[in-house]
Amino acid sequence: MGRNVGEILARPCALWPRKPALVDQGRTWSEVQEHVERDAGALRELGLGLGERVAVISRNSARYFELYFSIPRAGGVIVPLNHRLAKPELEYCMKDSGSVMLLADREHLDLASEISNSVVCIDDWDTSTASAPPAVEVSEDELFGIFYTGGTTGQPKGVMLSHRNICEGAINVVIAMGYREDDIYLHAGPMFHLADGCGSFATTWLGASHVFIPGFSPEVLLDAVESHGVTSMTLVPTMYAMLLESPEFSTDRLKSLRRVFYSASPMPPGLLERVLDAFDCEIGQGYGMTETSARLTALSPEEHQRFSSPGATNLERARLASAGRPIVGTEVRIVDEHGEICPPGEVGEIVARGPNVMMGYWGMDSTNVLRDGWMHTGDLAFTDDEGYVFIVDRSKDMIISGGENVYSVEVESALYSHPDVLEAAVIGVADPKWGERVHAVVVLRDGAATTEDALMNHCRAQIAGYKIPRSFEFRDSLPKSGAGKTLKRELRLNVMSEQ
Amino acid sequence: MGRNVGEILARPCALWPRKPALVDQGRTWSEVQEHVERDAGALRELGLGLGERVAVISRNSARYFELYFSIPRAGGVIVPLNHRLAKPELEYCMKDSGSVMLLADREHLDLASEISNSVVCIDDWDTSTASAPPAVEVSEDELFGIFYTGGTTGQPKGVMLSHRNICEGAINVVIAMGYREDDIYLHAGPMFHLADGCGSFATTWLGASHVFIPGFSPEVLLDAVESHGVTSMTLVPTMYAMLLESPEFSTDRLKSLRRVFYSASPMPPGLLERVLDAFDCEIGQGYGMTETSARLTALSPEEHQRFSSPGATNLERARLASAGRPIVGTEVRIVDEHGEICPPGEVGEIVARGPNVMMGYWGMDSTNVLRDGWMHTGDLAFTDDEGYVFIVDRSKDMIISGGENVYSVEVESALYSHPDVLEAAVIGVADPKWGERVHAVVVLRDGAATTEDALMNHCRAQIAGYKIPRSFEFRDSLPKSGAGKTLKRELRLNVMSEQ
Repeated sequence: MGRNVGEILARPCALWPRKPALVDQGRTWSEVQEHVERDAGALRELGLGLGERVAVISRNSARYFELYFSIPRAGGVIVPLNHRLAKPELEYCMKDSGSVMLLADREHLDLASEISNSVVCIDDWDTSTASAPPAVEVSEDELFGIFYTGGTTGQPKGVMLSHRNICEGAINVVIAMGYREDDIYLHAGPMFHLADGCGSFATTWLGASHVFIPGFSPEVLLDAVESHGVTSMTLVPTMYAMLLESPEFSTDRLKSLRRVFYSASPMPPGLLERVLDAFDCEIGQGYGMTETSARLTALSPEEHQRFSSPGATNLERARLASAGRPIVGTEVRIVDEHGEICPPGEVGEIVARGPNVMMGYWGMDSTNVLRDGWMHTGDLAFTDDEGYVFIVDRSKDMIISGGENVYSVEVESALYSHPDVLEAAVIGVADPKWGERVHAVVVLRDGAATTEDALMNHCRAQIAGYKIPRSFEFRDSLPKSGAGKTLKRELRLNVMSEQ
Repeated sequence: MGRNVGEILARPCALWPRKPALVDQGRTWSEVQEHVERDAGALRELGLGLGERVAVISRNSARYFELYFSIPRAGGVIVPLNHRLAKPELEYCMKDSGSVMLLADREHLDLASEISNSVVCIDDWDTSTASAPPAVEVSEDELFGIFYTGGTTGQPKGVMLSHRNICEGAINVVIAMGYREDDIYLHAGPMFHLADGCGSFATTWLGASHVFIPGFSPEVLLDAVESHGVTSMTLVPTMYAMLLESPEFSTDRLKSLRRVFYSASPMPPGLLERVLDAFDCEIGQGYGMTETSARLTALSPEEHQRFSSPGATNLERARLASAGRPIVGTEVRIVDEHGEICPPGEVGEIVARGPNVMMGYWGMDSTNVLRDGWMHTGDLAFTDDEGYVFIVDRSKDMIISGGENVYSVEVESALYSHPDVLEAAVIGVADPKWGERVHAVVVLRDGAATTEDALMNHCRAQIAGYKIPRSFEFRDSLPKSGAGKTLKRELRLNVMSEQ
């Protein structure tokens, strides 16, 4: 008998029915269970059929947490949408997934109504008269959810994750992150993203409690940590930088924290040092991607402590810039173009295998990334001789800015659609606040005189705000390889030498 | 892509090739990998075919550890035999499993030759000239090993565990037991048993190191802990009692221990108190069975500490006699005869579901214990209102004496085969040293005058020494139910009232 996301919730409901589950709501696990059953019943009453997709567009909330359980409980498949996407992108996700309804919070209600004709406002949704639907039997290999991520094709790709994917991903995180039954977990990052999801499922399985903030700001986060005694959370490096810069910040306000994580990218060394100083708790890092139900490698708090201690060797200190090592529960390798394992020091592609690897992309051929069960991440890396993974490049041309993935090809497509743009190349450049900044190198057509501002406005209508280039460079031509491919590495080197 | 036991070993070999893996041998992970490849090659050279069974009879050793990986690496299925069984029992296991060869240590070589005509002595087995066999592809649902356990039918039953069963069982134990990468794990219990196996796979996956003792004695264990800096081990309650009684015991000799466990049964309260006093480390408990790839519930070190503290309520203190709570990764319920979940306080049967539940019994119908994916353990229990599981009876009529499972029906069958025995009922009675003691209530035929000693000798030829009754009671008749079934509960109550 296989795994089902329902079993994750069943454990705390059976063992701690009266324990506060969603702390800021004062809601116990037994009440969560009731809500989930009722919401599932209401979804069925709305006509939801087995296997049909239900999209969600919402900021973080207790109800969002419950939807991750009530939609599958009703036999549906959840499609969490990135609320920061632009309308055409959201329209694409709705249409591509074939979602039959869209659950939206009040803030996104108008937008939701523009992209779906079957919208439910979850802030006003009273399901108290609904009753629990009949039990739904699904095998562990059936679809749990579709998670859209930016794609190299310029369109978001729907990552299909099964019940087993989610469960195994959660178990991997329980082990790698060392969450505990008595944790109070803050949903600091956006809940549509599996970086929060894997921590959420992991902590739920353990019976930990949850706190939600609608979105990140230093002030809101500090208040939440302080008033609810938060013990654990995962932030992207940018959020740490913003926290430390906030006038409201003081180490004392974070004294309930036991263990915090950063993900999406290694922390710039200067920032990590400041964080280790300012946070009086354990600090760990996780690396992964939606396609692998999140985590693949981790750098543990013990390693952070050891490698940042005065006695650490240079080699050890350098490991603070790594993504750590492969975690228990999934196989991770660095391989060359023939699939052979690279010796330490040699750059290859990160590939991963295991029950955490996605079923494939929804409605798309995935054979180019899923080969013999190995997920080809597109990230280039090498290991040192103790297996620490150093990511050197993302062959997918992905920029991680403030924790959000930006695929350069999406931004380039937006730029190319401007009549004055002859050529465009988008790269990530180091940025003290955002980790990486989206930077565009543009060649205009002869005689054109478009400005940065005009190009930014042009992009704004097509892609999410965080994807819009924050800096521009106009050139007469782009450096090319013999085969005519734009040499982005050269562009990156140029930018670095100018900084 | 699914799980394979090979991935458990692959991780430490990739990440810590030069780290001491088998401490007492001074053997690194890279050397273990070499040994496993060579032994697998040698098994193929001996003619081992894919899917064929290879039995092992041996005390604990480094090579035994490696066989758990080299036999599947060669495409074979491991059948670890309990070396304490009597010859007829071992013959049954060999024949039932259809094992094509028997790997034996020197101590069991003569016995091995009596029950197999294809014996290899693993103490003299030089495989240094063998080379790695071609890779073997097996799905995660294929058979990894057959683990024989005593059966209610009077014959051992072969528990079939798949690669996935073993891997998921190991992951469950990583989480529940809190093993760590820097642990030094002592194989204190017998390695043919999955109580050691699940800890062994779990610690290997994490990259912890291993120490072996051929068998348990207080002196050998104390020496091993002290000389190798052992940090973790699992003992049955009887072993703790023997340790504390040993003149060689001193708390100081165990100072390297970080966290130890007991399993097989809750610890008698007096003993637990003494252990908590004498061991200056964390203490936890695990409950489970071979059929569920071992662990199902656990009582954590934190719970031991909390429930034994001076401030603990009576209710909390009572939980020290429980088997703890269902662990993450497997579903555990107490159900009535209709399969409905019992409310707290009501006695029902412990059932478990999840990818850790066995494939079935080898060559036997398992539909009576595996129903809708739920393993019916035969153990009767109730929960308190926080989900702690209190085992009250084993409906399989199993006695756990010194950590070994004894099925009363096996012992009764041996007794019944004596010409003078008219009726026999075997029960477990509380025993300060063994936890439970095998106790026989016997009705002799008219005019017969057989003695205890004669019956013990009679049993010795048929069943393992630990199964032989340690005390006897002769009666004129046995108490019976209306349907004629022997009322063992009444016998147990009689014995208790006499003690």
